[in-house]
Amino acid sequence: MTQEPPPWIAASSGAGGDVAASYNWEHAESLRSKKMAWSPWRVRPEPPNAVPPIMLTGGIPDPDSLPIDDFIASNERVLRREGMFALQYGGPQGYPGLREWLAKDINRREGLDLRAENFVLTCGSSGGLENLVEALINPGDVAIIERPCYPGSTRVIMSCLAEIEGVPVDADGLDCDALEQTVARITAARKTPKLLYTISNFQNPAASTLALERRQRVIEICRRNNILIVQDDAYGAITFGREPLPSLFALAGGDGAVLLGTFSKTLATGLRVGWIMAAQNIVDAVTRMRFDMGVSPWTSRMIADFCESGTYDEHVPRMIEIYRRKRDLMLSSLEERCTKFARWNVPAGGFFVWLELSEGVDPVALDQATLEEGVGYVGGKAFFDNGDGANYARLCYSNVAETEIPEAIMRFGRALERASAH
Amino acid sequence: MTQEPPPWIAASSGAGGDVAASYNWEHAESLRSKKMAWSPWRVRPEPPNAVPPIMLTGGIPDPDSLPIDDFIASNERVLRREGMFALQYGGPQGYPGLREWLAKDINRREGLDLRAENFVLTCGSSGGLENLVEALINPGDVAIIERPCYPGSTRVIMSCLAEIEGVPVDADGLDCDALEQTVARITAARKTPKLLYTISNFQNPAASTLALERRQRVIEICRRNNILIVQDDAYGAITFGREPLPSLFALAGGDGAVLLGTFSKTLATGLRVGWIMAAQNIVDAVTRMRFDMGVSPWTSRMIADFCESGTYDEHVPRMIEIYRRKRDLMLSSLEERCTKFARWNVPAGGFFVWLELSEGVDPVALDQATLEEGVGYVGGKAFFDNGDGANYARLCYSNVAETEIPEAIMRFGRALERASAH
Repeated sequence: MTQEPPPWIAASSGAGGDVAASYNWEHAESLRSKKMAWSPWRVRPEPPNAVPPIMLTGGIPDPDSLPIDDFIASNERVLRREGMFALQYGGPQGYPGLREWLAKDINRREGLDLRAENFVLTCGSSGGLENLVEALINPGDVAIIERPCYPGSTRVIMSCLAEIEGVPVDADGLDCDALEQTVARITAARKTPKLLYTISNFQNPAASTLALERRQRVIEICRRNNILIVQDDAYGAITFGREPLPSLFALAGGDGAVLLGTFSKTLATGLRVGWIMAAQNIVDAVTRMRFDMGVSPWTSRMIADFCESGTYDEHVPRMIEIYRRKRDLMLSSLEERCTKFARWNVPAGGFFVWLELSEGVDPVALDQATLEEGVGYVGGKAFFDNGDGANYARLCYSNVAETEIPEAIMRFGRALERASAH
Repeated sequence: MTQEPPPWIAASSGAGGDVAASYNWEHAESLRSKKMAWSPWRVRPEPPNAVPPIMLTGGIPDPDSLPIDDFIASNERVLRREGMFALQYGGPQGYPGLREWLAKDINRREGLDLRAENFVLTCGSSGGLENLVEALINPGDVAIIERPCYPGSTRVIMSCLAEIEGVPVDADGLDCDALEQTVARITAARKTPKLLYTISNFQNPAASTLALERRQRVIEICRRNNILIVQDDAYGAITFGREPLPSLFALAGGDGAVLLGTFSKTLATGLRVGWIMAAQNIVDAVTRMRFDMGVSPWTSRMIADFCESGTYDEHVPRMIEIYRRKRDLMLSSLEERCTKFARWNVPAGGFFVWLELSEGVDPVALDQATLEEGVGYVGGKAFFDNGDGANYARLCYSNVAETEIPEAIMRFGRALERASAH
């Protein structure tokens, strides 16, 4: 790839920077690797004399509410009580105790009868998706994603040399008629649609939730075509108000549906612990396809202690209240500053507001204006694999300090105004 | 795969065990996944009324010397000082602070001029190998391994649908004439030899070290054929006596050689933190091929604190003395009990003694006899991808209590004797 690397990779011409290499890596590199561009998550260069920006970018929990003291306590308990096991290989499927807690927790919430054996611990839900697609996708298979879609997921699916098809998302989640037509087009072309990747709750970035009747229809369409439903539920637990809808896994009775979960959004993205929840034969396959000796048993046992002690069940509702307040403040600030330049939905959960920019807003000018005003956001193009999306913007309220939200949106509104003046 | 799963996977016919599945996973599963058998690391069923076995199996550090107190202290320091960063995504290349420490440490030992940019943090060296081969191997490419070889590495290379060729290992490491002939045979068949995987220091399982002149020759052969040398140096730091030889990376000036390292053997296997050390273009490619948002920044920062505080540099020599004593005791016990039935080398480092069984020993009978005598070992077949190796056995001295070594070897000697009586 000749694309310019992000700033955390320094330019160099070899080890130590001064080697006249005879080994030809570019010749040797795998097709998969050659196909992979850099992740779109870049640190933008700041203009000289810039205002220190307020960032509305990464989908990361509130930094002031991280349960530092509880993590320290759980960690010390685990190391003193079971240090020998915490510090030893825990097997490719991951620490059974945490998988048991997950089974109990999900059985209680979804009325299921899962066991620890239905789970594999993974390096976040992104690691879970990687593990799953490598067990599922052959080069040339087709994967159906939502448009827009979290680009990290599109990248890992593409890395298996899958072809990508997208279906649009509206306020009730993915468009089932479009799904039906897309599947028909794929099979008419004698290709194999292997999976549907959907963030059904509080979609990233569109912040919409797949309606119940659509969930049923998705299952029906996928079942007819032997398409595996992969529901990434990273944000599912962060719900404001009504009871969460049953997962596609629960509605499908675990038949042809897999759920990806994570502690990244409820606890901390730095933990790197998530899970695949699936029927036994799929769990077996993804476990056989793990070669890294599994997720850290230390971290997994620390999380299990945190969960079993009841701290997790206290922590999540407290976080939800924080995110609800931030969402409300962001929405009222947007209402005050931005109605002329964009429209947006009311997220029922999760971390994001998804803005559709008015026709008069020039996205390139907006990018420049936000740099100068000092506010970070993610432009919509990052979420579309097909070049669309320039007229969208994702704003994240989870990670910014509550007190900074009005100022951030005031800056964003000024940037929108400047980008509309062209 | 129809092979029987290991005991940590319960048999079941679907989610919760009672689902009549309509989704056909076996039809959908990727070629890569279909090819993967279970890892050979199994828990053997114990016979009824068995003596509690003394295990000489896993390559795991001494459990009584785990630096629990220091880990607790480093962890608390890190969470209090930089918790917000430790608990947040750290990027696919991994925490720069730990990569800087690695660069400094390796520069000092090997006289190199590496920077943090030459490292990617990985889920142990096994995760590093996975990351690397996915960036390098196309289906049908040929990978050259040592015979015997650590089977986890063979598995991950095979999972990329590479063809495997093996070269034998003797007391001075891999046989360079055999390597030369193997490469010639591969290229004559118009196939592409992409990598040579070698555990050059204290080989697992053969406990031999690649001699200096052979290192030079390996580099020369691989350079001529654009073969990437992948030196897995998991055991390199555990050296008894003489100065370690320069790595193949150092000898090659970083050109066409990659080193895989890990904290698993010096600190703890449960940390799941290792690294790829490589020239910039290879580091770039493997970083682009990481989709799991990177190794835990929390664990990485904890290890960095442990290293920077000087504790690591005190810990490793202390561990080396423990392993040296255990090695000596295992060797003198073997000398006392087993000379009639096997021969072995004197490991200059690492965790293992590799036994070649005498012709009269029946390996199947040995397997049964050790079960009954109550001693665990790994039969040689696990380390050969081609069905060979039945007349070898790997004994690990690192993880067993020192006081149990004479008893363990007495049991092993009795089992050898019984297996020879046939």
